Amino acid sequence: MIKERVLTGDRVTGKLHLGHYVGSLQNRVALQEQYDTFVFLADIQALTTHFDRPQLLGQNLNEITLDYLSAGINPDKATIFIQSMVPEIAELTVLFSMFVTVNSLRHNPTIKAESKNSSLDELYYGFLGYPVSQAADITFCKATIIPVGEDQLPHLELTRKIVRRFNELYSPILMEPRALISETPRLVGTDGNAKMSKSLGNAIELDSTKEEITFKIRKATTDPARVHKNDPGHPEVCPIYAYHRAFRSHDAPEIREGCESGSISCSACKQLITTALDQLIEPMRERRSYYAARPKVVEDILLSGTKLARDIAQETMSEVREAMGLNYFSK
Amino acid sequence: MIKERVLTGDRVTGKLHLGHYVGSLQNRVALQEQYDTFVFLADIQALTTHFDRPQLLGQNLNEITLDYLSAGINPDKATIFIQSMVPEIAELTVLFSMFVTVNSLRHNPTIKAESKNSSLDELYYGFLGYPVSQAADITFCKATIIPVGEDQLPHLELTRKIVRRFNELYSPILMEPRALISETPRLVGTDGNAKMSKSLGNAIELDSTKEEITFKIRKATTDPARVHKNDPGHPEVCPIYAYHRAFRSHDAPEIREGCESGSISCSACKQLITTALDQLIEPMRERRSYYAARPKVVEDILLSGTKLARDIAQETMSEVREAMGLNYFSK
Repeated sequence: MIKERVLTGDRVTGKLHLGHYVGSLQNRVALQEQYDTFVFLADIQALTTHFDRPQLLGQNLNEITLDYLSAGINPDKATIFIQSMVPEIAELTVLFSMFVTVNSLRHNPTIKAESKNSSLDELYYGFLGYPVSQAADITFCKATIIPVGEDQLPHLELTRKIVRRFNELYSPILMEPRALISETPRLVGTDGNAKMSKSLGNAIELDSTKEEITFKIRKATTDPARVHKNDPGHPEVCPIYAYHRAFRSHDAPEIREGCESGSISCSACKQLITTALDQLIEPMRERRSYYAARPKVVEDILLSGTKLARDIAQETMSEVREAMGLNYFSK
Repeated sequence: MIKERVLTGDRVTGKLHLGHYVGSLQNRVALQEQYDTFVFLADIQALTTHFDRPQLLGQNLNEITLDYLSAGINPDKATIFIQSMVPEIAELTVLFSMFVTVNSLRHNPTIKAESKNSSLDELYYGFLGYPVSQAADITFCKATIIPVGEDQLPHLELTRKIVRRFNELYSPILMEPRALISETPRLVGTDGNAKMSKSLGNAIELDSTKEEITFKIRKATTDPARVHKNDPGHPEVCPIYAYHRAFRSHDAPEIREGCESGSISCSACKQLITTALDQLIEPMRERRSYYAARPKVVEDILLSGTKLARDIAQETMSEVREAMGLNYFSK
C-alpha cells in the first residue's frame, strides 16, 4: 500500500523554539511513522517579508535543519527539502496565477490580517500571491494531508479551489489536499503573551542549555495575584501552568489544584517544569551536537531530500505540461 | 567586441500579419544583422488571457515560428526560443515579485487600460503581474536593447526600476535595458480600424495567397467621399494610402497627389498595392513552404534556440542565487 503524503514546513525566518515543538514538530515526529512525510524549508516564502535581508536565509536554514533533526525528525523516514531548490514550484506558481483573481487573494484572512494597516496597493505583489505559491508547494508533490492550525484553514481552502479549477480547466491530475487539524493550541510566551515568538523575546529555543531554561523559567511571568507563597493562584492566567499542561500533562490536574489552593509555591512549580523541559531538551541537545559536528552529513540530508523532491516535481511538471498542452515536442 | 543583446517576442495568440511585419518583424530582420538578437514565443504570457484555451498555444507556436522564418528571421543569426521552456523566467518572476508593490503594477498604463472595464479585484493575479514577468524575460538573458512602441515605454520603465532595485538590494548583476523606439506606426486594418488585428477580421496574414491579398484589398475600405472615379480623395483617411506609405513609400507622394486630384482611381490604386503586397509576401510564401515541409528542421531551430536561452538563463540564475545568498551549497 502506498502511504499518503504529508507536507509541512517552516519559513526560514529564525530558529525554532518550544512553541514550534508543541505546535508542529512533535506532531511531525509522530506523522513520519505513519505517512510519507515531506518537511520543507520555505526560503522563498520567507522572502515575502525578508526580501531585504536574504543573507539571514542561509544561516537560518542550517539552524532550522538542526532543530528538525534534534527534535526527532528522522531523515530516513521524512524528506527534508529546500523550497528554492525546486524551481518547478515557481513554474506552478506562475501557471496557477493565471486563473486566480486578485479578489480571492485579498479576501484570504491571513492577507487581510497582515495587511490591515496598509491598503491592497501597498502590499508587495509576491506577498499578495503567497497563497498561490502555497498551492504550488502542496501540489507539486501531490501531498494530500496538510497539518494546519484552524487559522490556516482558509489558505488550504484556496489551494483546494486552485486544484479543482486546474483539474477542471485542463485534466484531473492534481490532488486535492485535506487538512489535518492539530489539536495543540499555541504555546504562550514566558511573558504571558499568547504566542511564544523569538521576536518578542519570550521564547525558549530548542537548543537551550539547562542554565538558559532555568533562567528563562525563573524570570517567567506567573499569576500576579500570588504575592505570597500561600496565596491561592489562577493557573489559567499563568504561562507556567500552560507549560505543565503541554509538557507534564499527567501531573497538570495536581498542579492546578496546588496552585488554586496555594499549597504549591510558584518556585516549586517552576522547579518542576524546569526539570521537565530540561529532560525534554536534553536528547535534542545531544542529537544537535551530533549533527552540528557533522556538517557534511547535514548537507547530504538536505541535498538528497531536495533531490527526491525535485524528481517528484519534475514528474508533476511533465504531467502539468501535458495536461495544458505545453509539451510541444514530446508528442 | 561583444554584440549587445536585443530581445523581442510575440504572445502566441494567433498567426502574424502585415501589422506585425511593419510593426516589428521587418525591424527584427534588420536588427539581427547588427545585434545578438533573441526572439521569443511568449506562451506563458499568452496564458494571462488564454489560460482557458491552452490548446491554441501549440498550434500558434508552430505558425508563428513559420511566420518568423518566412519573414526573414534567420536562425543562424537570431535565437528563437520558447518562454515556457526556460523555467528560470518563472523563478525570476517569483523573486522579483517580492519587492514590487501592487501599486506600481496597477498604475502601469497597459494594466490600467486593459482593466478599465473591471476593478483591480476582478483581475487575474498573473495578469496583474505581467510586467514583472516581462522584467524576468528581459533580465534573464541580460538583453539591453528592447525594440518597443511608444505605448510600451511604461512597461520598460518598470523593468528598469525592478533591475535597479534588485541591483541595489543584492548585487549589481542585472543589466538595465533601454528602449529602441520603433518609428513605424501601427498599421491600419483593411476596414480602416486603427489597428490591424486578426480578431477584428481586418488583417492580411503573412501566408496569404495572391488571391487572398487581391480579395482583401478589393474589399478594403477607402475614402467614402470618393463616390466617382474622379472625385478628389482624402488619402489620410484611406487604409490603402496607409499601405502605400508602409510598403511603397517611394511612390507615396505621387499616390497622395493622384488621390487628392482625383487623377488616380481607387481601383488602380488598389491594383498597385496588391501587386506590391504580393511581391512582398511571395518570398515569404517560398520560405514558409520550405520550412513547413521540414517540421524536423523547425523543431531543431526551436530546440537549439531554447537550449541556448536556457544555458544563459541558468548562468544568470546562478549569479542571482549568489547575489541573494541562496547558493547554500556552493560556498
